[in-house]
Amino acid sequence: MKKKLVIYPGSFDPLTNGHIDIITRGLEIFDRLVVGIAQNSRKTTMFSVEKRKEMILKAFKNHDRLEVDAFTGLTVDYAVKRGATAILRGLRAVADFEYELQMANINRKLSPNLETLFMMTSEKYFFVSSQNVKEVARYGGNISALVPHCVEQMIREKFKTS
Amino acid sequence: MKKKLVIYPGSFDPLTNGHIDIITRGLEIFDRLVVGIAQNSRKTTMFSVEKRKEMILKAFKNHDRLEVDAFTGLTVDYAVKRGATAILRGLRAVADFEYELQMANINRKLSPNLETLFMMTSEKYFFVSSQNVKEVARYGGNISALVPHCVEQMIREKFKTS
Amino acid sequence: MKKKLVIYPGSFDPLTNGHIDIITRGLEIFDRLVVGIAQNSRKTTMFSVEKRKEMILKAFKNHDRLEVDAFTGLTVDYAVKRGATAILRGLRAVADFEYELQMANINRKLSPNLETLFMMTSEKYFFVSSQNVKEVARYGGNISALVPHCVEQMIREKFKTS
Amino acid sequence: MKKKLVIYPGSFDPLTNGHIDIITRGLEIFDRLVVGIAQNSRKTTMFSVEKRKEMILKAFKNHDRLEVDAFTGLTVDYAVKRGATAILRGLRAVADFEYELQMANINRKLSPNLETLFMMTSEKYFFVSSQNVKEVARYGGNISALVPHCVEQMIREKFKTS
Amino acid sequence: MKKKLVIYPGSFDPLTNGHIDIITRGLEIFDRLVVGIAQNSRKTTMFSVEKRKEMILKAFKNHDRLEVDAFTGLTVDYAVKRGATAILRGLRAVADFEYELQMANINRKLSPNLETLFMMTSEKYFFVSSQNVKEVARYGGNISALVPHCVEQMIREKFKTS
Amino acid sequence: MKKKLVIYPGSFDPLTNGHIDIITRGLEIFDRLVVGIAQNSRKTTMFSVEKRKEMILKAFKNHDRLEVDAFTGLTVDYAVKRGATAILRGLRAVADFEYELQMANINRKLSPNLETLFMMTSEKYFFVSSQNVKEVARYGGNISALVPHCVEQMIREKFKTS
Repeated sequence: MKKKLVIYPGSFDPLTNGHIDIITRGLEIFDRLVVGIAQNSRKTTMFSVEKRKEMILKAFKNHDRLEVDAFTGLTVDYAVKRGATAILRGLRAVADFEYELQMANINRKLSPNLETLFMMTSEKYFFVSSQNVKEVARYGGNISALVPHCVEQMIREKFKTS
Repeated sequence: MKKKLVIYPGSFDPLTNGHIDIITRGLEIFDRLVVGIAQNSRKTTMFSVEKRKEMILKAFKNHDRLEVDAFTGLTVDYAVKRGATAILRGLRAVADFEYELQMANINRKLSPNLETLFMMTSEKYFFVSSQNVKEVARYGGNISALVPHCVEQMIREKFKTS
Repeated sequence: MKKKLVIYPGSFDPLTNGHIDIITRGLEIFDRLVVGIAQNSRKTTMFSVEKRKEMILKAFKNHDRLEVDAFTGLTVDYAVKRGATAILRGLRAVADFEYELQMANINRKLSPNLETLFMMTSEKYFFVSSQNVKEVARYGGNISALVPHCVEQMIREKFKTS
Repeated sequence: MKKKLVIYPGSFDPLTNGHIDIITRGLEIFDRLVVGIAQNSRKTTMFSVEKRKEMILKAFKNHDRLEVDAFTGLTVDYAVKRGATAILRGLRAVADFEYELQMANINRKLSPNLETLFMMTSEKYFFVSSQNVKEVARYGGNISALVPHCVEQMIREKFKTS
Repeated sequence: MKKKLVIYPGSFDPLTNGHIDIITRGLEIFDRLVVGIAQNSRKTTMFSVEKRKEMILKAFKNHDRLEVDAFTGLTVDYAVKRGATAILRGLRAVADFEYELQMANINRKLSPNLETLFMMTSEKYFFVSSQNVKEVARYGGNISALVPHCVEQMIREKFKTS
Repeated sequence: MKKKLVIYPGSFDPLTNGHIDIITRGLEIFDRLVVGIAQNSRKTTMFSVEKRKEMILKAFKNHDRLEVDAFTGLTVDYAVKRGATAILRGLRAVADFEYELQMANINRKLSPNLETLFMMTSEKYFFVSSQNVKEVARYGGNISALVPHCVEQMIREKFKTS
């Protein structure tokens, strides 16, 4: 069988230790992992796509089987265009689960040959979400246990300049 | 990277169309899939391990990347012994999800290099479980939409002889 | 359209105020309501089918649109045999919900013309289950807020004689 | 007993195959079904109330026991005004369930004689929501398995003109 | 051991009978209870912080172990500043539960000595939320069973003047 | 206010690190904590009540505000007999949550002045249950991360002798 490429899509606004956990474990299992940053013109983000790309590359410096890319449109279309075997998603909570169950089924309707694979977030990160990180950072809380060091610095600068 | 072997463990008492769905999709993604029938001496089953092996082999006749095996003890120990990269599990419902989240975390505690990957059961099989099949069959209901043909026959014989 | 008959199936071991709530509300909506006591030879019950029938009849004395019956086998087969338009079920908790979602879908597979309708248990009874009642009664707790008066007496006698 | 009228309220923005499923099954059970389009001046919709009415009427052409109407204010007030016996709601997921459990209880507080009845969405539509349809359509994905043909055309025109 | 102070944080926009239930029960258990109104400049509220303070004080007139206060920033920082032993939260639904489980864990990361304690909302208030109250009030529904009398009057005035 | 006694009831068969976490945190908050071992003659346990008592005492040697006791009957009756202010329970998962929500409400029905307080299990123990520990131990898995050292030894002896 040929080398398999798997897409790990998300907003990564910002990258958290939970994402790091899934990417690290994904690289153990799959031949090639593409972190796909979903661009959604209708959502306001804390960091630009370029900054988010930078974060992920900094955190996984020069990993030869990892690629960081950005895309617009449906994840499933991007995954097919890239020739992906599967989409990788992390699961944390029941609320995630139901949304992901629906999306996995709708995606298979749209592209029957594309699989969605799930990993359970490690227990020590299950309470870490980009949303939580932003909330804590906004009020000056300590986020060093929630994000990699380089992201912590970028967030700190962000709040200094804004 | 070398060929990857993935274990799909379960009771398969009996094999359902939901299992067929996960095995079929697993074979699309993984180099080698081992269906591992968990033997638990403390549980009464409808079919013997041999019969359950037979069912799965009949349903996937001669698929060269599929193996059917039986094991006792912890799934994680069996998976390590077989040199598996990952354990594959199907998810159907929130109740499954919480149990699987706990097991995935406990398994990683026991064997940090073994990953657990999940697939969402296809919507048309999400209500099919071995438990449901046995319940319906016991009262003479029609199970032809729930299990492969060969299993339907084996169940029918079972109830004839008992 | 002709008169509609609806089945409310269950174990009713014993009848609780939660059941009373659903039956009372069901009688407001449906032309004819049949409380169907499911007989399952493999389960040990606190009360015999006859005693359970008696409980329900006592609680709803002489209601002309209510019938109490017992059945064996699949609920769906009984409902079809009775010419029912629908099966009525009460929902209390997420755990109920998932089981009922699966059963409603499997029942429609078995009998496509039979509908399952659900009512949400009133908030004041959502914590009352036959299981809870038995647990509390077994240890001599006060169950007068959980079951109708006639059931309370029957349970008290039960524990006196056993 | 007199003829019973049941309200099926919702936004229907747009009508999906999931709604079609509930309406079709509701018409099998109830004497008269009113699809009530909830108008909420504070929400931006993809289609006007008139267009949404048109969709539903097109999909169920000339069904004599179906009526399509629009209302503002509380569903429960509209239902009482129409002399409805019950409100009908579809359930798909645990997230739905909890919201619906709360609303059913609050509605009974507001109008004790009005019942809310639930149907489980068929397994093949449980992943279809108006929200999902809009998301997929926005990015040019294929929605033909998610909505009736007439709605697919109206959505296509919408995106052409916008 | 010294007197213990517990913080009950929330938006209280408006105060509901569900909040009243938790505060009343909290006062039975804890030496001193501080109701902490969270000020969030990015959220539009129905009532100003002053009005919300007024509501709570009116509902619990002159209770000597209750204090009503407002704060900005992270709840955990406010609780530490006040020398609180614990944060008190009410639980109603699974959706609440998962959010609260995450927040309790993130809060312990931020402040390891601060505990979060939960009470289950009484069954008769489990369907009452500030969100529901606003929704019902907006459309002229009767909210007298959902909020204390003084809040009902303040809401009525609100809608008269707006 | 007088000193407050809180009951932490459970089976503790065996004591896990999850229990240790809740007891430790409970002792930080409450004046006096009684670990109440529930005796249920209808359940087969791995360890006798005496052995379970021993485990807990060993793990918390000579803590002056901790007491370990055993009781039969309803938890609520035991708590009242002991003059407890509250029952303390740990929450881990949605399945726990629903059961606990029901029990908290039923307990308040039985004893209106007794409160139930909940703590969220720390994320690092949320996947540890007595059930899981027994399952892993039975098959010879490594439980040193799941239970305190003294319990690990007692379990090892257990399996040696059986």
